[in-house]
Amino acid sequence: MFKKIEGGVCAPKGFRANGVHCGIRKNKIKKDLALIVADAECAAACVYTKNLVKGAPILVTQKNIENGFARAVIVNSGNANTCNEGGEEIAQQMCRLVEKHTGISAEDVIVASTGVIGQKLSIEPIANGMKELVGGLGNNSTAAAEAIMTTDTVKKEIALEFVIGGKVCRIGAICKGVGMICPNMATLLMFVTTDVNISPEMLQKALSADVVDSVNMLSVDGDTSTNDTFAILASGLAGNEKIDSENTDYSLFCTALHEVTTALCRMLAKDGEGATKLLECRVSGAKNKTDARLAAKSVISSDLFKSAMYGCDANWGRVLCALGYSGADLDVRKIGVAFRSAGGYLSVCKNGMGMDFSEEYAKTVLSADEISIEVSLNDGDFEATAWGCDLTYDYVKINGDYRT
Amino acid sequence: MFKKIEGGVCAPKGFRANGVHCGIRKNKIKKDLALIVADAECAAACVYTKNLVKGAPILVTQKNIENGFARAVIVNSGNANTCNEGGEEIAQQMCRLVEKHTGISAEDVIVASTGVIGQKLSIEPIANGMKELVGGLGNNSTAAAEAIMTTDTVKKEIALEFVIGGKVCRIGAICKGVGMICPNMATLLMFVTTDVNISPEMLQKALSADVVDSVNMLSVDGDTSTNDTFAILASGLAGNEKIDSENTDYSLFCTALHEVTTALCRMLAKDGEGATKLLECRVSGAKNKTDARLAAKSVISSDLFKSAMYGCDANWGRVLCALGYSGADLDVRKIGVAFRSAGGYLSVCKNGMGMDFSEEYAKTVLSADEISIEVSLNDGDFEATAWGCDLTYDYVKINGDYRT
Repeated sequence: MFKKIEGGVCAPKGFRANGVHCGIRKNKIKKDLALIVADAECAAACVYTKNLVKGAPILVTQKNIENGFARAVIVNSGNANTCNEGGEEIAQQMCRLVEKHTGISAEDVIVASTGVIGQKLSIEPIANGMKELVGGLGNNSTAAAEAIMTTDTVKKEIALEFVIGGKVCRIGAICKGVGMICPNMATLLMFVTTDVNISPEMLQKALSADVVDSVNMLSVDGDTSTNDTFAILASGLAGNEKIDSENTDYSLFCTALHEVTTALCRMLAKDGEGATKLLECRVSGAKNKTDARLAAKSVISSDLFKSAMYGCDANWGRVLCALGYSGADLDVRKIGVAFRSAGGYLSVCKNGMGMDFSEEYAKTVLSADEISIEVSLNDGDFEATAWGCDLTYDYVKINGDYRT
Repeated sequence: MFKKIEGGVCAPKGFRANGVHCGIRKNKIKKDLALIVADAECAAACVYTKNLVKGAPILVTQKNIENGFARAVIVNSGNANTCNEGGEEIAQQMCRLVEKHTGISAEDVIVASTGVIGQKLSIEPIANGMKELVGGLGNNSTAAAEAIMTTDTVKKEIALEFVIGGKVCRIGAICKGVGMICPNMATLLMFVTTDVNISPEMLQKALSADVVDSVNMLSVDGDTSTNDTFAILASGLAGNEKIDSENTDYSLFCTALHEVTTALCRMLAKDGEGATKLLECRVSGAKNKTDARLAAKSVISSDLFKSAMYGCDANWGRVLCALGYSGADLDVRKIGVAFRSAGGYLSVCKNGMGMDFSEEYAKTVLSADEISIEVSLNDGDFEATAWGCDLTYDYVKINGDYRT
């Protein structure tokens, strides 16, 4: 149904992108300024962090997409433009620079920043970098994906092709993590483009529904960032009949969006700060969807369990413990736990009690770089999946001296 | 008002204790079985973990102290007696062994276990060790404190003397941590004795009120254990007029109890798994007590902030971020943050914005082994304190291979 294609955010019709080094970051080989522009007005939707401490760019973006439309996204890395003086004015200046260099109205610009909190963001390097940034606009999703990276070790982008009402549609995305990740209605920075024709209302509905089972089920360290922003732009250039109700076209679009966001969640978790392993917890048999989500997220958020996975230790007691304090309604005597990876499948707990297993085989299963933890609550028909990573020395190292 | 004295749980009149190695743990120099007995019936009160996965000993203890009285505490380390077959029967057998060797009714025994989850606890070593354990009962609080240690690096005991109604009273305690610590109505294992004369009802009331601002404000890793048990026994042998209402004697007892529990919380945090630093977050100026507690606990629970403290990095943006997602009602524009230690005092944030400071001086302040993070919300009159520790390579190392 969905075909992977190249191009990232530039794969859908009507979008160009670029990323450059403008000088916010001292390291000249690290890009720090990204721009995505649409050839025509787009339906736009956003979700933001629920942290009460919000980055200044979020306040500006909220105003700019109030009418449901936007045409550009400008993002810098290296400075979060948060908890500093004049941050909102700087964010507005970034939008005005886009207007000056592209002709797109400043009020049609989504603006985001990521990096250190509490330091003044200077507009000079951004102003100086705009000519190169705009001059290079084209099929450069990768440059944009690179320019929004902070402690990410790999760029994250994806694009899919699918058909709605006989029309070929595309959806593409870039995003960045990878610390301070426990999104609440959004992940750190995720930007999705599509050429699907859809109303702003249905686009926002699709986005708000999606995050509950995608980015909100992701945790690297339990810290909800101040700058989380997940924006989506829909150009409508695919030419499908406009989606303006919850019809089958809408469902198909939601499925495509979910394919993209869950793939990005897996990338984000796998590249979690210091991580050596992607952890995916699949909970089934829950009494309801909320309990399934609570249980899955609790397991992948447990520092104890994350440390055990780093050590390839099949300490399933940590899983039971995390389920027990998750807040989910469950019956311990019914719980089953198994580990699955490219290395094999290992059942470790049945009816809430331990099973005999070979420690040697357990090491083989847990030595893989993607581990699935399968939890059966055997108490209902609902399921959920959450993504996380192991906790390692390097997480501590990276964050012991983040600012320098 | 309170004088520190020697003797731990044996300092109050009417209590004897001991700890031995009986063979649950393979390492023969590590004690693994502890016993505290009272010469006479004691008023007894307990709080337990809120984890739905509960250790089998908790179920037995709950029944045994239902009537408000108890006379002994038996505890083993090395095995949590949780999520295994026949755990409740084993816990009952432990109580019957106490009856057999001391004459104290099995129904007057508080039983607790700590260690690995999901493995069968054999009664044999315990049965074999009872003679030595009971034979050595005396002023041996230290041996008992040692026998309940798991990954603790230091034993934790304390005793205070104070006066109620002209009578000299004593209160003593032992406890253990130090991973899977985010108590919810109790810490992992904490046992308090006192010779204060107090009714079971008032004792339970004092205990339940105390934990809200003591052990429930402590977090090492955000994982709530399955076996948390905090028990208190009051022999009444101090001879004070029986406390059976919320009078001034009751208030004095509560204050003594709080002195003991907060001192133990600091010890537990400082000895958190892998920790090099005690972190104490004092929040003032909150709109209400609940907001103050949420804010303080959120800061000391943040992995990002804990990592920054390990690296002596004055990254106060992590503090603001944790306050923002704490759930507390607060106004970012009013927040002040300062760090205090034996190395000095450093104000880093005022009105929600960064202040200039010397990075060199910041390193001096943050290099101490006890750091106080002072947060002023400037929005009310309530305050709270929470305790935690830094996140280090050693936490990961300890928990990467806990079972072996």
